[in-house]
Amino acid sequence: MNTFGTIFRLTTFGESHGTALGGIIDGCPAGLAIDYDLIDSELRRRREGDTPSPLTTARRETDRVEWLSGIFEGQTLGTPIAFTIHNDDCRSSDYSLLQHNCRPGHADYTYEQRYGRRDHRGGGRASGRETAARVVGGTIARTWLGQQGITIHTHHEGYLITCRIDGLPAGVGNPVFDRLNARLAYAALSIPSAVSFATGQEPDSWKLPGDAFPDQWIDHGEGPTLTKTNHCGGIQGGISNGMPVVFHVGFHPPVTQPHGMICRQNDGSLVNIVPHGRHDTDHSSRLPVIVESMAALTVADLLLNRHNS
Amino acid sequence: MNTFGTIFRLTTFGESHGTALGGIIDGCPAGLAIDYDLIDSELRRRREGDTPSPLTTARRETDRVEWLSGIFEGQTLGTPIAFTIHNDDCRSSDYSLLQHNCRPGHADYTYEQRYGRRDHRGGGRASGRETAARVVGGTIARTWLGQQGITIHTHHEGYLITCRIDGLPAGVGNPVFDRLNARLAYAALSIPSAVSFATGQEPDSWKLPGDAFPDQWIDHGEGPTLTKTNHCGGIQGGISNGMPVVFHVGFHPPVTQPHGMICRQNDGSLVNIVPHGRHDTDHSSRLPVIVESMAALTVADLLLNRHNS
Amino acid sequence: MNTFGTIFRLTTFGESHGTALGGIIDGCPAGLAIDYDLIDSELRRRREGDTPSPLTTARRETDRVEWLSGIFEGQTLGTPIAFTIHNDDCRSSDYSLLQHNCRPGHADYTYEQRYGRRDHRGGGRASGRETAARVVGGTIARTWLGQQGITIHTHHEGYLITCRIDGLPAGVGNPVFDRLNARLAYAALSIPSAVSFATGQEPDSWKLPGDAFPDQWIDHGEGPTLTKTNHCGGIQGGISNGMPVVFHVGFHPPVTQPHGMICRQNDGSLVNIVPHGRHDTDHSSRLPVIVESMAALTVADLLLNRHNS
Amino acid sequence: MNTFGTIFRLTTFGESHGTALGGIIDGCPAGLAIDYDLIDSELRRRREGDTPSPLTTARRETDRVEWLSGIFEGQTLGTPIAFTIHNDDCRSSDYSLLQHNCRPGHADYTYEQRYGRRDHRGGGRASGRETAARVVGGTIARTWLGQQGITIHTHHEGYLITCRIDGLPAGVGNPVFDRLNARLAYAALSIPSAVSFATGQEPDSWKLPGDAFPDQWIDHGEGPTLTKTNHCGGIQGGISNGMPVVFHVGFHPPVTQPHGMICRQNDGSLVNIVPHGRHDTDHSSRLPVIVESMAALTVADLLLNRHNS
Repeated sequence: MNTFGTIFRLTTFGESHGTALGGIIDGCPAGLAIDYDLIDSELRRRREGDTPSPLTTARRETDRVEWLSGIFEGQTLGTPIAFTIHNDDCRSSDYSLLQHNCRPGHADYTYEQRYGRRDHRGGGRASGRETAARVVGGTIARTWLGQQGITIHTHHEGYLITCRIDGLPAGVGNPVFDRLNARLAYAALSIPSAVSFATGQEPDSWKLPGDAFPDQWIDHGEGPTLTKTNHCGGIQGGISNGMPVVFHVGFHPPVTQPHGMICRQNDGSLVNIVPHGRHDTDHSSRLPVIVESMAALTVADLLLNRHNS
Repeated sequence: MNTFGTIFRLTTFGESHGTALGGIIDGCPAGLAIDYDLIDSELRRRREGDTPSPLTTARRETDRVEWLSGIFEGQTLGTPIAFTIHNDDCRSSDYSLLQHNCRPGHADYTYEQRYGRRDHRGGGRASGRETAARVVGGTIARTWLGQQGITIHTHHEGYLITCRIDGLPAGVGNPVFDRLNARLAYAALSIPSAVSFATGQEPDSWKLPGDAFPDQWIDHGEGPTLTKTNHCGGIQGGISNGMPVVFHVGFHPPVTQPHGMICRQNDGSLVNIVPHGRHDTDHSSRLPVIVESMAALTVADLLLNRHNS
Repeated sequence: MNTFGTIFRLTTFGESHGTALGGIIDGCPAGLAIDYDLIDSELRRRREGDTPSPLTTARRETDRVEWLSGIFEGQTLGTPIAFTIHNDDCRSSDYSLLQHNCRPGHADYTYEQRYGRRDHRGGGRASGRETAARVVGGTIARTWLGQQGITIHTHHEGYLITCRIDGLPAGVGNPVFDRLNARLAYAALSIPSAVSFATGQEPDSWKLPGDAFPDQWIDHGEGPTLTKTNHCGGIQGGISNGMPVVFHVGFHPPVTQPHGMICRQNDGSLVNIVPHGRHDTDHSSRLPVIVESMAALTVADLLLNRHNS
Repeated sequence: MNTFGTIFRLTTFGESHGTALGGIIDGCPAGLAIDYDLIDSELRRRREGDTPSPLTTARRETDRVEWLSGIFEGQTLGTPIAFTIHNDDCRSSDYSLLQHNCRPGHADYTYEQRYGRRDHRGGGRASGRETAARVVGGTIARTWLGQQGITIHTHHEGYLITCRIDGLPAGVGNPVFDRLNARLAYAALSIPSAVSFATGQEPDSWKLPGDAFPDQWIDHGEGPTLTKTNHCGGIQGGISNGMPVVFHVGFHPPVTQPHGMICRQNDGSLVNIVPHGRHDTDHSSRLPVIVESMAALTVADLLLNRHNS
């Protein structure tokens, strides 16, 4: 299931060191003007981070997007939008040491268990490089949301990204299972290295005292002025109430260790490997645009999903 | 979308003060013996809590399950299992004050925005009573998991429930979007009053130092002895690795206030209401069985979903 | 997968001689007034046929619908509508002869192969009685369609039912896979004993000469006056064009033979059985309302599904 | 919804005269060796027909498949298989006359109604060229089915294609809605210009007398020798019985008229157009491989879908 969403749907493909990665966006409304410059700049944010540092990845990714379908004279047709990003700078031989070894803290072992095989080069399908396709899809979703007056921003401290969605009307999301918060959690935890999710003004609202919790109504309030506080993060009973939607995503630090790592060989014995491949050493500045993209895909899908009201 | 799951699917229905609530379990493997006593005792855990106290709900719920289909001579047929739980003790008149008023911290306002109407009696569809159907479905899932050697336990401190799944084989879950952790997060955040989710030994692993994070392999380890630590909570790259799966769910405290609450009237003005209806004043002891039920539904679905390995 | 539809969704349950059959309608728009009398009269059409005859089923089915949820003060809430129809007149002992024998022309053998077991009483889940739940769901869909000016009628000659949908606007359906005609075919072939499906004015349009086929435009035509002929049955490229949608469904004659049938025993040997159970001997007059119900469910779902236009 | 299937899923993209068409195959079992030569020869069957004639399309399609992901050292990884076929020979200027005109018997008008716009060049997304992606996906499905001993063949007379699936085990398909025959009908009617579908030995079995219908068991028969006749086309109650699965698909003749066609202009008035573009004048010899591909996709998906037995 490499598909995200039910109406505004992104299906992605691609191994880190295969020919290309990319995706198909199905269900995007017709008549949307594609902002190619915005997509390029968002891909640059993903590639280099919001605050580029010498610690970010040494791999030179150019991320040139090739558009294959679904756009005619600059606007979406309503048909599937397919795009590819070719993998230009692949020195796969760097990874031959990892062919029969599973790194700690990576998906090598579990992919072997799931499929009986894997593309060992650079993490294959499990590489963070896969998130480039999410950024392309998410930016198109975001462009459409912008037309409805909905904007998405993040700020991050340490490895906690806080995301805020402004302008979302009341009534988006579903009761019971398919709640707006449940969908955002699903989106957030699908990001590589995500470990936690929380809704509300503060990431630890389960520690609040009971009488502090209910957000009190503002007299004749509506939309962004509905309640005095926003402990519920703009979501009541799984459905948006018109206040800003606020959630937090925690990530673990990157796990590739430049000075070697104890890998598991096929027979279960261990071996120390010092990888020659390039790899992320600090991904935190790259995470915001990915969180924003997943939020955009989630909200666009649910906004198109209000059939029975 | 009142359906949870893709193969082992639970569809639920029911308003708190309607005729009945219940559900249809579709995709349950054939030949499973139904443990009616276990279902009754799990419903009692949901109703009265693991540690009953005078603070738990005053509503006398009997939760007698009526089975309508899908079971023949005590075993599942592979066809849909339908069940109902009638609402016996409904004094709906208690709720007439809430007909035109939206409580703070509840779903009244958002349901109005979503559907243009709601059943105001006792929260309607948004009532916590809806979780009874989850417990029935989850317990059947759990019975089937038990046959595969998979067990689920929780413990809770304050409003944080920690859930542990033992015996899950390596290779369960999907890469990229439909990860085991993303699915568990979706399940957890669909529980009424859930505010946060985290995977791993500790609920705040985003605060760990980078070098502490990667779980180191045990020499010739496998299954529950695969790694020395379990920071990843038994999940690598979205797929189980054979270690116990561990996750945490945070809940906000209950919001019904016995001494009155400022409600929002249809015209936006505010009014103080002292509800006569019965209501939960401490739900924490009732949450464990709901978390366990949602975990069981999630894992059963993904376990049946390993087609292409 | 006992669910039909993606937005307007009907999930059904029930064995012929179990406690009850019924279903859950999820995704029905809120605020629809339920026409209980219409539902009863449509169930009577299903039960007794449009032209009752002494040949129709001897089983006395009363089909009293119990409504469990999703309706408040006579109108839909937008939440799941659950309903049951209890099986009152079940003389299961009539069927004991069939416990270890598979009838010819029935689903006994294939259910055994699929699930390793079956409820042998009266066909179990495979009984035509299951269609009662479709008629309930279909009639609610039809009520909603009626509000949009869309009506559905059938006429039948021998075992061919021709169905005509009037008032469907242009632009309903999807290109490529999920075409209006493909969905209607899926709906039609899901009806017990259906053997064929065709779109267009005539059921055999593949025999038409090529130059006769393209329906010619009417000058300034629109909606039901768009084209001079209707060979395409109101569907071009999988999408409605505003003309009446016309399709045909062929059924095989009923297969229960009152004078005995050669059944297959578990060990593969054959035995002649004369059933004592009641059974349909001519179902043709009961089919129209089932075809109409499935058409209504299909069209309502696709009409709610035009998000990205 | 440009996705076909639920587990073995093909998502396609591409306009006839855009940059490329192609697709993503998700859910294909890992470890399958890709037969590139077979894919090329099946694409040639689609392009030139089984019996090439001077009447088939004048467009020179080379259909060179580029593989982007999901295959490693010649075998599938279990991850998404993406492929593209570039559109080399596009003289789009040929089609400028059709920019503001809708042809009779085509999807021009309905796409306009559905999306408010279309790519008018060569039919855009509605072009038969889109079926190339189905043949790629279908041939991979067929390769996997071949490993399970399942083969698919067609023969055609006039515009009726009869398809036969041999080797399918008993127990494939689902009861009630998601029947094997309903799925095959959905698949068949999704093919451009398909107008009818029927199961069984003969395409008109609704005309058979009632006593002829039930297929009689063979003593100790099993698999392909289960019954004496095959009126039910290998499907009972929506589930395969082990006999060959037989169905028929009727197509209308091609509608492009070389001597001009009366088109509908945007304002509803009519105009005669003589198209310069290349176009199919007889597609019948190209249909068999498309029917076989859709049958393969359908059967592979259902075969991977037998979870709960």
